[in-house]
Amino acid sequence: MSQTPDSAVHPAPSDAVRAHIAAHRSAFLDDLAAWLRIPSVSAQPERSGDVRRSADWLSEKLTRTGFTTVEVWETDGAPAVFAEWPSGLPDAPTVLVYGHHDVQPAAREDGWHTEPFEPTVIDGRMYGRGAADDKGQVLFHTLGVQAHLAATGRTAPAVNLKLLVEGEEESGSPHFRALVEQHADRLAADLAIVSDTGMWSETTPTVCTGMRGVADCEIDFYGPDQDIHSGSFGGAVPNPATVAGRIVAALHDDTERVAIPGFYDGVTELSEAERALIAELPFDEAAWLTTAKSHGTLGEAGHSTLERVWARPTAEVNGIGGGYQGPGGKTIVPASAHLKLSFRLVAGQDPAHIETAVRGWLAGLVPAGIRYEIAFGAPTRPCLTPLDHPALKAVAGAMSRAFDGAKVRYTREGGSGPAADLQDVLGAPVLFLGISVPSDGWHAPNEKIELDLLMKGVETTAYLWSDLPAALRADAPGA
Amino acid sequence: MSQTPDSAVHPAPSDAVRAHIAAHRSAFLDDLAAWLRIPSVSAQPERSGDVRRSADWLSEKLTRTGFTTVEVWETDGAPAVFAEWPSGLPDAPTVLVYGHHDVQPAAREDGWHTEPFEPTVIDGRMYGRGAADDKGQVLFHTLGVQAHLAATGRTAPAVNLKLLVEGEEESGSPHFRALVEQHADRLAADLAIVSDTGMWSETTPTVCTGMRGVADCEIDFYGPDQDIHSGSFGGAVPNPATVAGRIVAALHDDTERVAIPGFYDGVTELSEAERALIAELPFDEAAWLTTAKSHGTLGEAGHSTLERVWARPTAEVNGIGGGYQGPGGKTIVPASAHLKLSFRLVAGQDPAHIETAVRGWLAGLVPAGIRYEIAFGAPTRPCLTPLDHPALKAVAGAMSRAFDGAKVRYTREGGSGPAADLQDVLGAPVLFLGISVPSDGWHAPNEKIELDLLMKGVETTAYLWSDLPAALRADAPGA
Ligand SMILES: [Zn+2]
Ligand SMILES: [Zn+2]
Repeated sequence: MSQTPDSAVHPAPSDAVRAHIAAHRSAFLDDLAAWLRIPSVSAQPERSGDVRRSADWLSEKLTRTGFTTVEVWETDGAPAVFAEWPSGLPDAPTVLVYGHHDVQPAAREDGWHTEPFEPTVIDGRMYGRGAADDKGQVLFHTLGVQAHLAATGRTAPAVNLKLLVEGEEESGSPHFRALVEQHADRLAADLAIVSDTGMWSETTPTVCTGMRGVADCEIDFYGPDQDIHSGSFGGAVPNPATVAGRIVAALHDDTERVAIPGFYDGVTELSEAERALIAELPFDEAAWLTTAKSHGTLGEAGHSTLERVWARPTAEVNGIGGGYQGPGGKTIVPASAHLKLSFRLVAGQDPAHIETAVRGWLAGLVPAGIRYEIAFGAPTRPCLTPLDHPALKAVAGAMSRAFDGAKVRYTREGGSGPAADLQDVLGAPVLFLGISVPSDGWHAPNEKIELDLLMKGVETTAYLWSDLPAALRADAPGA
Repeated sequence: MSQTPDSAVHPAPSDAVRAHIAAHRSAFLDDLAAWLRIPSVSAQPERSGDVRRSADWLSEKLTRTGFTTVEVWETDGAPAVFAEWPSGLPDAPTVLVYGHHDVQPAAREDGWHTEPFEPTVIDGRMYGRGAADDKGQVLFHTLGVQAHLAATGRTAPAVNLKLLVEGEEESGSPHFRALVEQHADRLAADLAIVSDTGMWSETTPTVCTGMRGVADCEIDFYGPDQDIHSGSFGGAVPNPATVAGRIVAALHDDTERVAIPGFYDGVTELSEAERALIAELPFDEAAWLTTAKSHGTLGEAGHSTLERVWARPTAEVNGIGGGYQGPGGKTIVPASAHLKLSFRLVAGQDPAHIETAVRGWLAGLVPAGIRYEIAFGAPTRPCLTPLDHPALKAVAGAMSRAFDGAKVRYTREGGSGPAADLQDVLGAPVLFLGISVPSDGWHAPNEKIELDLLMKGVETTAYLWSDLPAALRADAPGA
């Protein structure tokens, strides 16, 4: 095979990819273990040195992998790592891979059977904090691009490959949007691939196609200037805690649909085809409820549980408080009450429009004699890749090859994340490529990664970088 | 005048009553000041010795006044004082006067212009903690019965006079009901007179005819076993904070009437005559709102503010809590939420029936997947004396004489108090005789009593003990 770049992109043969992976699996896992030993817990200030060590370790590893540019990017918080490896091909698409190198806190006494920062392989699984979320899933890209090169005989990937690995995801990515905005030109891409999610199960490979957005607000209701006696005044003055309750009750109608006028404006409804695909998934509601630690389902009429958490917007009460909350009773009309609400948003919903809708709805419900204040946090937009997007088809195809021809299905993620910032700032569609499974224990004791699945991730990317240029070209206008 | 008891009860002439009061006013006020110097704050454990000193001081004063039996009654908390002065007349009615000798906490730095426990007379007012609530209003009964004797020439009152002065009213009377039950035979009376309320204003003498009762409950709602992620699960599982809000909203209908089925069962409605009497009162709603520290009125449709707080039952949210209440936001479906509700009750409502109604109503509203617990506290019954009760007419008549023939009007008290225990245990109607005015500053800095009004209280009782036997006899069956 030629060792010089050429302008034709050849497919990566499976046997060559698999041979490369097999040859390098052991060294790769040693690297992963080394990285997992660095307790890069972004939420613990005393670990900030470890977060930096983690960034430095990753930089060294990416350089060793072959990335031509590797930089540690400072933020007002923990550092991120950026790496770039140009294709050399004039018409190569540019792909930006996103992940994070910080991890959740972990301590042996939380219920770990092994030391959380001493990775341990047992029965084909590597246990350790960050194994799945997200170091394992960042790292498979290093062996993946090398397998891609080995199998295609190229010296640079067939796509312009960029990596952005942030260091504060587990702390809510407080500086991520600013970072992306600051480096928007360096990060420019045709496509973003987020490797920080998972698949349906070990036996059902899936690609996530979108995340919900979120808008949140805090509402403070003020009634009497101080708590007043409910005997002397109760029944004749408005009670802010009662008003808060009424606002909560007014969030939904009798069908559990959000009752705020305008809330559903622009919502991208699920097509019948998408609903059918979701319905085909082997969903075990009882098992899901166990995971949800909940004792019943309740949601928007006319939608299944999966549709509700993946594709439907919500209004949720995150917190409520007012009046006396100590032991026993206190016969007062409280001076104030407070609500924390959040709204999950789906594709087509505009957070600014939601804010306007909520403000207008609220203004019409608060009675005279109650003053209120409402403040919104910074929203996260929803993101969604259409099922017929060529990149999505390429990802699913590559994954199917890695999974021996298994049918790849589509999921969504109910949560919200920094992926939306990439979509917003870069104007690029976002795909989600993850091989973690629900049993991996994200944010829980005994987090692990299935090593065979990890290699499927490696393999998927090895194929993907080969397949993507043609897939995107085929779909280009005029193609 | 005869100095021996006789069996005919003569009216107490005004000039004789007033002459006696004038002659003893100064010594009486010295006594009141001495009592006010004892900081009998029942809510402060370090003052328990002072509360006992206060009981002892009162015992000595009552003995000096002429009461034939004076006892300090122990409770599981602070001591009460009981005193008795039999009439000697075979058919004399028995009257039990209720008051309390404990006071609210007070400290100079709370905004007092004088030392709270160093009573100070300025411009005809005595300032000091307890001046109006309730030492002044207990003590006027001592000079009152002496004026009654002096003006009628009797050596014992024309009624069998009993006094019960508790020491924990400002701490919620936790042992009062047990005390009344324990001594029910000693306390037996045809009538209870509570001197622990006030009048409408300096220029509008009034008699309070009833208090609302109160039933309270705490409701805990449990959803997920722990706070769960609102992105992963929100929109598909029931949220206990949302349920708490819906329960709050369901408390009332659109007319602010309590919407719990059966809640109004048995309610003694205001007659048109009573409504007219209330409407005649010189009510300044703006001033009332200032007192209520509220910024608007809201209550049951079809009723005025005074009707709402005096004569209508209510459902009030005293406290609500659930989920995240700290700074910022947290996107969770909370594990639990909690409500503290209280219901003011009016005559005709039975607390046990209310509890049953609330439990049934709640059970029908909580969705599957939410577990709840509800617990009721000990209720306080409402009490109400009919406007045509002869004792009420006697009290109003005596008060009118003391106020130079002014028309005495009727009020009610929206709060709830130990008066209901007297009514329940003793089976006696309860009347309220108080001469305090709204500006007296109960529970606030610079509490005071108007000395001229205090003397009107003395004078009212001097007449009342003379008038009551005939008034009750006239109304007795067969009279
Ligand atoms: Zn992650
Ligand atoms: Zn009092």
